[in-house]
Parts: sequence; structure tokens; C-alpha cells
Amino acid sequence: MLPIAVTMGEPAGIGGEIVLKAWLGRRAGIPPFYLIDDPDRLASLARQLDWSAPVCPIDTPDRALAVFGEGLPVKPIGVSIYGRPGCPDSADAPAILGAIRTAVCDVRAGKAAAVVTNPIHKDSLYRAGFGHPGHTEYLAELAGISERPVMMLVSPELRVVPVTIHLALRQAVERLCTAAIVHAGRVTAAALRQDFAIAAPILAVAGLNPHAGEAGALGREEIGIIEPAVAELLDAGIDVRGPHPADTMFHAEARRSYDAAVCMYHDQALIPIKTISFYDGVNTTLGLPFVRTSPDHGTAFAIAGSGVARADSLISALRLAATMAARRFATTPEPAPNEA
Amino acid sequence: MLPIAVTMGEPAGIGGEIVLKAWLGRRAGIPPFYLIDDPDRLASLARQLDWSAPVCPIDTPDRALAVFGEGLPVKPIGVSIYGRPGCPDSADAPAILGAIRTAVCDVRAGKAAAVVTNPIHKDSLYRAGFGHPGHTEYLAELAGISERPVMMLVSPELRVVPVTIHLALRQAVERLCTAAIVHAGRVTAAALRQDFAIAAPILAVAGLNPHAGEAGALGREEIGIIEPAVAELLDAGIDVRGPHPADTMFHAEARRSYDAAVCMYHDQALIPIKTISFYDGVNTTLGLPFVRTSPDHGTAFAIAGSGVARADSLISALRLAATMAARRFATTPEPAPNEA
Repeated sequence: MLPIAVTMGEPAGIGGEIVLKAWLGRRAGIPPFYLIDDPDRLASLARQLDWSAPVCPIDTPDRALAVFGEGLPVKPIGVSIYGRPGCPDSADAPAILGAIRTAVCDVRAGKAAAVVTNPIHKDSLYRAGFGHPGHTEYLAELAGISERPVMMLVSPELRVVPVTIHLALRQAVERLCTAAIVHAGRVTAAALRQDFAIAAPILAVAGLNPHAGEAGALGREEIGIIEPAVAELLDAGIDVRGPHPADTMFHAEARRSYDAAVCMYHDQALIPIKTISFYDGVNTTLGLPFVRTSPDHGTAFAIAGSGVARADSLISALRLAATMAARRFATTPEPAPNEA
Repeated sequence: MLPIAVTMGEPAGIGGEIVLKAWLGRRAGIPPFYLIDDPDRLASLARQLDWSAPVCPIDTPDRALAVFGEGLPVKPIGVSIYGRPGCPDSADAPAILGAIRTAVCDVRAGKAAAVVTNPIHKDSLYRAGFGHPGHTEYLAELAGISERPVMMLVSPELRVVPVTIHLALRQAVERLCTAAIVHAGRVTAAALRQDFAIAAPILAVAGLNPHAGEAGALGREEIGIIEPAVAELLDAGIDVRGPHPADTMFHAEARRSYDAAVCMYHDQALIPIKTISFYDGVNTTLGLPFVRTSPDHGTAFAIAGSGVARADSLISALRLAATMAARRFATTPEPAPNEA
């Protein structure tokens, strides 16, 4: 059994306190993990919050299992932190990125089961010269893969995959293409088999337009872009249905008819899952040679340091990472889902 | 007390059988209503389904209250129907439109409390020369109003108003304008006061882009179009908040913070409400000089005539129409909400 590596994330955000909260709830079936962070910062945060959470600095990930019952295992990042709750400092960028690199090294070296990332604040990283749009692209580079990873949001009732993500809606419409839908569908189907143990996954593809375009009367992207992608996925032996009208795809009965919904833009995927499961949704990156999940919220500067932030999503992310990693280790070691 | 006028809708659809079902459930607090249809067609449909629902032809709406306990009151349309379940016939267009006109005449003459419309099949009507995009525009013409009515979807947990409706997503983005958002907001706020008895309604306006554009980084429509609309509505004394990121607006806690969500496009409004309330959502038209509601589903040709169609949405539409009409009659007679 291996522990899960959790990154520091933006130290001015809620990352530290939700990790402490998750550790405090460790008897509720939370898989063992360690945080890559500054142990002094965590100990001081626990004291300020008056939480009985001793911090145990560890040298190597395997020590995490030994100390997890006694205290929160923290692998030191080796530098001091400048940001304070609610006040990010660009000087922390090297430490934030270093924690991500350490987590990836540990998991690739077989010392950690999976990577769980705490939220980062992109603006601070950009100002410090970070050249990637976000976590996902940085992880892909660290993993040395050339194919774009795929984002999936997972809740107890629904899995959604947005084909386009951080784009203005106008750009999402303009850039939607058959190849991107096919890529998302292939990576998703492979991950559902490998990491979710679904032998014959069913994908439901959403239309872009109201009523999935009403046979062209309300837009032609279904005919010109999405239907060819569905055909290509079917040719690849993937059980895929659609394009379906997006508004009738997400009620309880409809959700039971597929294993993941492939959505055309950010809000088409995120509105239904956050409407149903606001607190316990998990973000996972498919197509990496290791398991990575993260809570599906941001740094929440406004409440950072107060201890009120809920750890539900982080706890769900830890549990999902453990389950996915166990399935992956049970099959073959470290294949990328898109190579399946 | 006045009965509610229910239109025939497309006779090849499920309209007739859901009306029979609603009448069969009349003891469950369903307000009295009458159908404008062909009594023979309804009697024959009830026989085929083996439902104990006698049909009572009536001459005038006031007779509906007298006979409602004994049978389904039907005001005859005076012509024969050609369509059969699942098989629409353009020759029925005059009867379908005639039923809508009769309902509007009855309600405007003070003989009916409200209009509830059964689903129509636009293609058949277009082929017969119908010149309006749908019900709403036809009702606006019959009502003699020049301002565009506003569509609201209502469920027990959520009210949503799409600013743009039956447009391809690309067009919805292109045509979004401040004036349309302001119009929707004004009509919605007036209707919430008049028809929903909310003295100080709160509107939540959604952004168009992911994360409401992240201050311009993910699209500028929030800054250029939506924020000015919010400012104009605030100037008009309306309590309006936003633009909010659409994905975090619709979970249970968020929904409790406003009375209606003003959404920028069809699926942004319909995904959350249909995800939460698939069977009992109601469509209502705000800005008319009378109350109009309708079930929020279509003609369902595939199951028409089988008796399996659920009447939940029609029953919700009847109840909402009765409640809205009672509130409107309790205030002033027949003001249009957008004149308030």
C-alpha cells in the first residue's frame, strides 16, 4: 500500500486547512496521504485554528504510513512561504511548482499511489513566469506525454468531460472540432475501463445547440462536427450515443443511461454536476501515466485561514484517487489510458 | 371562481391523454378547467385507453364548474380532427390555432381564469402557413401587445428566464445585448411581484462565459453587455445581483439566495431546471395581459395514444396558472406585468 501525495497548492488559499481537516477525519475511511509543504506553516496554521493536528515532517513517502495515525505527514518543500491567508505572494511560485514536481516524481518512482493537487492561483504563477495555462498542462509536461490530457469531473451521481474548457463561450463554439471530441471520447472510454473498472462503458455526447440543433434548424455543429465524431468513436468500438439535447441529459433517470457525458463546453458540463453535487465533486485528469485528482474548487481567498472551508471535495478527491490507483495497479503498471 | 381554459395543442401528440389523466386526478387539488377540443375525439381516446373519464361538451366556460365533478368539460372546436396519435396532419392547423384563439378570447372576456396550452408541433403549423415562431409570439399578437413577452420556467425549487431562446448557440452569443437582458429583468421582476406575490424579488443574472469571464480573461461580454444591464436594472430599483458564474448558481444553497435566475441562453437556463425537476417543470409566459402556462415538454409523438405519458407537468401548469391568476385578480384586473 502506498500513500497519496498531496501538493501544497497556493499557500494563501484554503489548501492547508482542508488538508488538516481531512487528516482530522482520517478514521472515516480516508486513504493515507502526505502533504508536500512547509511543516512549520502547517503546524502554525493548526495552532491558530486550535485544531489538534500534530504535524510530522517525513523524509520519504513510505514514512507517511507509519506516522499517519499520529499526525499529518508533511514532506518539507525546503523553502519558506511568504503568502499569508488571502494574500498570495509571487515569491511562493517556485515552492508551489516544486511541490507539484515532487509529487509527480514520487508517484512516477512508485513511492506514492497517486497525486492530489490543491488549488493554485494562476495569476501569481503567471507573474512568476509560469508558462502553462494550468495544472493539467504542467502535469502533462512533467509526465512527458504529447497527447492532451482530458479533464473529467466526477460526483457520486455523474461524470462529465468538457471537450473545450477554459475558453470564452464564443471561442468554444468557434474552436469545437471533430478531432477534439474524438480525443475526449477515446481517452474517457479508456479511463472508464482502466480506472473506473467499467468493462463496457457507455458515453453520452451532448449537442452544442438547443435541442441538439433540431436537425439543423437551430445550428449545424451537430451535423457538421459532432455526428462525425460520434461515428468515428463508434468505428473505434466505443459505445457512444448522441448528440443528445443537453437539457434532458442530466436528470436522475437520464444519468443512469450512461457512464460519462461528453460535453461541448465548460458550463454545459459544470452546470449539471455542480447543481447536483456542489460540495463533493472531484476533478480528475485522464490520459496521464499516473492518477491525478483534485478538489473542484478554487483557492477561496475570502475564507482562507478561518477554518470554515469544507474538506468534502478534497476528501472525495483522496478517495477517488485511491480507488483509481488501486484499479490501475491491479491491471497493468502505469499505462496511459490513451494508449489502451 | 373561474375555470382554466386548456387548449387542444397538436392532436397527434399526448395533449388529449394528459388532460384526461389530469381530470382523473381531479380530487388531488387540481383547479377546475375545460379543454377546447373535439369532444368525440376525447371520448374515443378515453374508450381506447379504457379510462373512466366521461366527456361533457359545454357551450360556455361557466358550465365547466358545474360539470367538472362528473366528466371532463370540453368546449367543442366545431371541426373534425384528422391527425391520429403519432401522425400529425397539417389540415388540423386551423383547429389547433382556433383553440388558442378561443382560450385567449375566453380569458380576456373574463370567462376563464388563465390559459394553459398543450404542446404544438410547429412543423405542421408552418406548413399550414402559420407565421409565428411559436406559441408565445402568437399569444402576444392575440393579446395585442408590442413588447416581447418573456419565457420563464418554474419548478418547485427554481425559476429561470432565458434571455435568448430558440437560437443556435453561436447566434445566441452574437445577439446577446444589454437591452434584451434589461427587458427580461424588468418583466421578470414585475411578474414576481404581481403573479408570484414576492414583494421584493431578487434576480440573479448569469454570466455568459465560464467563471463569468474571469474579469475579461475568458470573454468580455460580462463587462461590455451584462454588467451594464445589471447597472440599468439596479437604477430601475430592481434588486439584481451578478453576473455570477453559471456553474455555481444552481445548487440548493445558491438557489435559495434569489427568486429567479436570468440566463443568457437556452441551455444555461434549461440544463439546471430539467436536471433538478424533469417531470414537473412549467413554462409560463410573462408580460401578457393574462396568465398563460404550459407543460414544459413536447408532443411526444413516440408515445402518443399509449396512455403512458405523465401528466405531472400539465398538472403543475394548471396549479401554477390558478395560483398566478388568483394573485393577479387579487391585485388589479388585467395589467400587463411590463406596464407595472
